Amino acid sequence: MQDWLNGQPLGAGLQRDRGLAYGDGLFETIAVRRGQPRLLERHLQRLATGCQRLRIPCDIAQLDAEIRAYAALLGEGVAKLLLTRGDGLRGYAPPAEPEVRRLLLGSPAPAYPTVHADQGITLYPCATRLACQPLLAGLKHLNRLEQVLARAEWSGTEYAEGLMLDQEGRPIEGVFSNLFLVHAGRLLTPALDRCGVAGVMRGLILDVAAREGFEAEVLPLSLDDLLQADEVFLCNSQFGIWPVRRYAAANWSVGPLTRKLQGSINEILE
Amino acid sequence: MQDWLNGQPLGAGLQRDRGLAYGDGLFETIAVRRGQPRLLERHLQRLATGCQRLRIPCDIAQLDAEIRAYAALLGEGVAKLLLTRGDGLRGYAPPAEPEVRRLLLGSPAPAYPTVHADQGITLYPCATRLACQPLLAGLKHLNRLEQVLARAEWSGTEYAEGLMLDQEGRPIEGVFSNLFLVHAGRLLTPALDRCGVAGVMRGLILDVAAREGFEAEVLPLSLDDLLQADEVFLCNSQFGIWPVRRYAAANWSVGPLTRKLQGSINEILE
Repeated sequence: MQDWLNGQPLGAGLQRDRGLAYGDGLFETIAVRRGQPRLLERHLQRLATGCQRLRIPCDIAQLDAEIRAYAALLGEGVAKLLLTRGDGLRGYAPPAEPEVRRLLLGSPAPAYPTVHADQGITLYPCATRLACQPLLAGLKHLNRLEQVLARAEWSGTEYAEGLMLDQEGRPIEGVFSNLFLVHAGRLLTPALDRCGVAGVMRGLILDVAAREGFEAEVLPLSLDDLLQADEVFLCNSQFGIWPVRRYAAANWSVGPLTRKLQGSINEILE
Repeated sequence: MQDWLNGQPLGAGLQRDRGLAYGDGLFETIAVRRGQPRLLERHLQRLATGCQRLRIPCDIAQLDAEIRAYAALLGEGVAKLLLTRGDGLRGYAPPAEPEVRRLLLGSPAPAYPTVHADQGITLYPCATRLACQPLLAGLKHLNRLEQVLARAEWSGTEYAEGLMLDQEGRPIEGVFSNLFLVHAGRLLTPALDRCGVAGVMRGLILDVAAREGFEAEVLPLSLDDLLQADEVFLCNSQFGIWPVRRYAAANWSVGPLTRKLQGSINEILE
């Protein structure tokens, strides 16, 4: 019997894809500048890790070539890659030989106000907390209802991002970005072995810090660590680094290490 | 720029649906017998609860009519309903006025061996544990990677279902069914306020127990409660009730309350 969409018969399409049915897949959101996919190796590295952990077969060389071809046509903007385990047979059991689907969706570059990077942002304290699931932690998979709920908590322009805590109240990440603190000259970012997404820009910042000789540490952080930090910033692969100026009752200025890293990152991305 | 699927340009379709992007939606798997959707009121009741909690607008009367029309054409089998928040704009923020999508996918009835209901099944001890997320607990939403991982843990016919524990080691549910225990004549089923899916058949069994004067209780259960139970069974809206005969080192016979409930449920479903 034919499938229906909104009461009308529907031809062959994505309606039986396991990405839709279960969120059984991964994605990457890749900035494209002058026809080039930015930080592509890092995006593909994370995707490969995700495929390995979810046991989704994938041909990274093919994806690399396809994304480059798509980016060349897109020119400027964002190329979103979705990789799913393809059509389902019956129930949750993954097919032994899935026909993996690759989707590439192009969009204009997000129009973030430049003032966010220049002068910093206010962070909304999200009530939605991240569940602890070590089997999925770090991956950019398609189960993102927690982020949808968290992002729905605020609207308007006062808050540029929201902070998500885990179930124990530890700060983990922004809704669509990663979190860094500076404590006495040391760069700290939350461990993501229980929840959270290991961002591509987070990885680049950790590498840059190591290269430039800063102490950088990945570890479990408490809310007090955040509140007592000297500097706080967010990062992602689209906007780079946003200094955080305010979270709840805490206030910060844009600090020197944040500015230095912004400079280093901008140089790399140019 | 046009979207690509597997390297080829793709026309309008479901590729930008938030159900695919984030699992931002709900589903129901409805048994259809002689052209009638079985337990439709209960399925729609759970869907309405999910829509309310996720703030997805939905017209239950329209869904009711549509599912009945689809079931009449399907005759025998399963009608899977997916309800998504429709196309995304940019990022996680839900659109203020989403164009909700309704998908109906028909399949033949699952061919479960009758021996499962008659003589009982062996339950696989899944290593994949359910994360604690009270905001999503009980709902049949589209974020189901935990079930995919759990169902991938075993293959073959020795195990008909797998048991999932929460992060604290409490038994919660099967991968695609709910769990009931009998202790000294009392019917017990795990509370689903931290994780798990509140199944339609689970609701029916609790109502039947109340109607027939059994004590029935919804409460947090421990693994010891399971291991020391007099009877154990699973249920879902497709297969009804399966007695559990074995889990790890524990063994049970098919008990009298399990048989009685099978009889009552079969009468209702006939």
